[in-house]
Amino acid sequence: MSPAADKPRHRVSRVPDRADYDLETVGEILDATTVCHVAVIDDRGFPVSIPTLHARVGSTLFLHGSSASRLFRTAARREVCISATAVDGLVLARSVFHHSVNYRSVVLFGSPEAIEDEDGKNEALRAFTEKLIPGRWEDARQPAPQELKATAVLRMPIDEATAKVRTGGAVDEPEDYELPIWAGTVPLRTVAGEPIPDDRLLDGVAEPGYVGEYRDARS
Amino acid sequence: MSPAADKPRHRVSRVPDRADYDLETVGEILDATTVCHVAVIDDRGFPVSIPTLHARVGSTLFLHGSSASRLFRTAARREVCISATAVDGLVLARSVFHHSVNYRSVVLFGSPEAIEDEDGKNEALRAFTEKLIPGRWEDARQPAPQELKATAVLRMPIDEATAKVRTGGAVDEPEDYELPIWAGTVPLRTVAGEPIPDDRLLDGVAEPGYVGEYRDARS
Repeated sequence: MSPAADKPRHRVSRVPDRADYDLETVGEILDATTVCHVAVIDDRGFPVSIPTLHARVGSTLFLHGSSASRLFRTAARREVCISATAVDGLVLARSVFHHSVNYRSVVLFGSPEAIEDEDGKNEALRAFTEKLIPGRWEDARQPAPQELKATAVLRMPIDEATAKVRTGGAVDEPEDYELPIWAGTVPLRTVAGEPIPDDRLLDGVAEPGYVGEYRDARS
Repeated sequence: MSPAADKPRHRVSRVPDRADYDLETVGEILDATTVCHVAVIDDRGFPVSIPTLHARVGSTLFLHGSSASRLFRTAARREVCISATAVDGLVLARSVFHHSVNYRSVVLFGSPEAIEDEDGKNEALRAFTEKLIPGRWEDARQPAPQELKATAVLRMPIDEATAKVRTGGAVDEPEDYELPIWAGTVPLRTVAGEPIPDDRLLDGVAEPGYVGEYRDARS
């Protein structure tokens, strides 16, 4: 038994001042990231980590995928660790040692359960669709019963989670501030390009307003 | 024993036409992503997935972190799964069911080993620094012996890896092409903002050319 065995597994050991356990911060990072990585121990005892989309409603995280997928067959009712990270910038310190990135990350632990009922699946799919691009759910063709059946949806409470956030500039060793070396940060962000309409749109089908709004908010 | 137990763990079961096992494709995605997620089974038997930076040289992946970090204490000589994903766009289909994202992802399996010698660590740190921003290594203050000691570097061969890539537009059910619903893609990309110089730069220390080049290549 390791000395840390009685410590909650989501508590941060290293650089604890970067850690935050508030649902609000955790939720904001989950909302800001498109893809998470779901780690699970597979049938052969190996760790497996698979990227997938996620959506959050309040203190519940949703995952979805094909009912036939290995991840969704494996993850239900097992212990998983879900992590998602946004990179916000490069941090160029005077020393190689203190180079870093600014980032926001979350790590969640838990045991997801499958949603079996149609209404529950439908609500989760609404959350995924509206997260992808707000306004889309009402506009798109709603899921048919056989599509709901082909979609596995997992639900997990967000009650064992950590956020880690680094912001700001470089932090160098005191003596390195005397060096004639440039230091600073380079901000990074995700932007949306010009929407590309499908080749087979019916005549007269215009780009919806929410698509332009999404792009303008990320230009 | 599961029916798939004799199948290599990095072989893709679902949507195999999106899968690619070439080192070239795997390497390009590793180079294009800043952060990966390292999944490992912790001392208590739980899967744990932690974000960290990665760098690649040829067919070797490097990870680095504090010698005191839980991840680096845990991951050396254990089985890990490392995944990294870039999201390239939203795919808005006519049906909710066929909404997707364009992405490039890699999943690697293996067992990293710690690099103990100074030269080996130094070479790996050069790769990290030059990946963050090409040109930086020669400009920054090089690692001191005690900094190399405080840095754990892990090395893993990239020999059990899968890339998955989705590109292109929406793919709808045949009958849905008759619906008056807009469909298309919204490209996403990462851009760099204006570099922010450190408050404590010495007089006369100008922004290096490679910083401007990095920004211009991502504007």
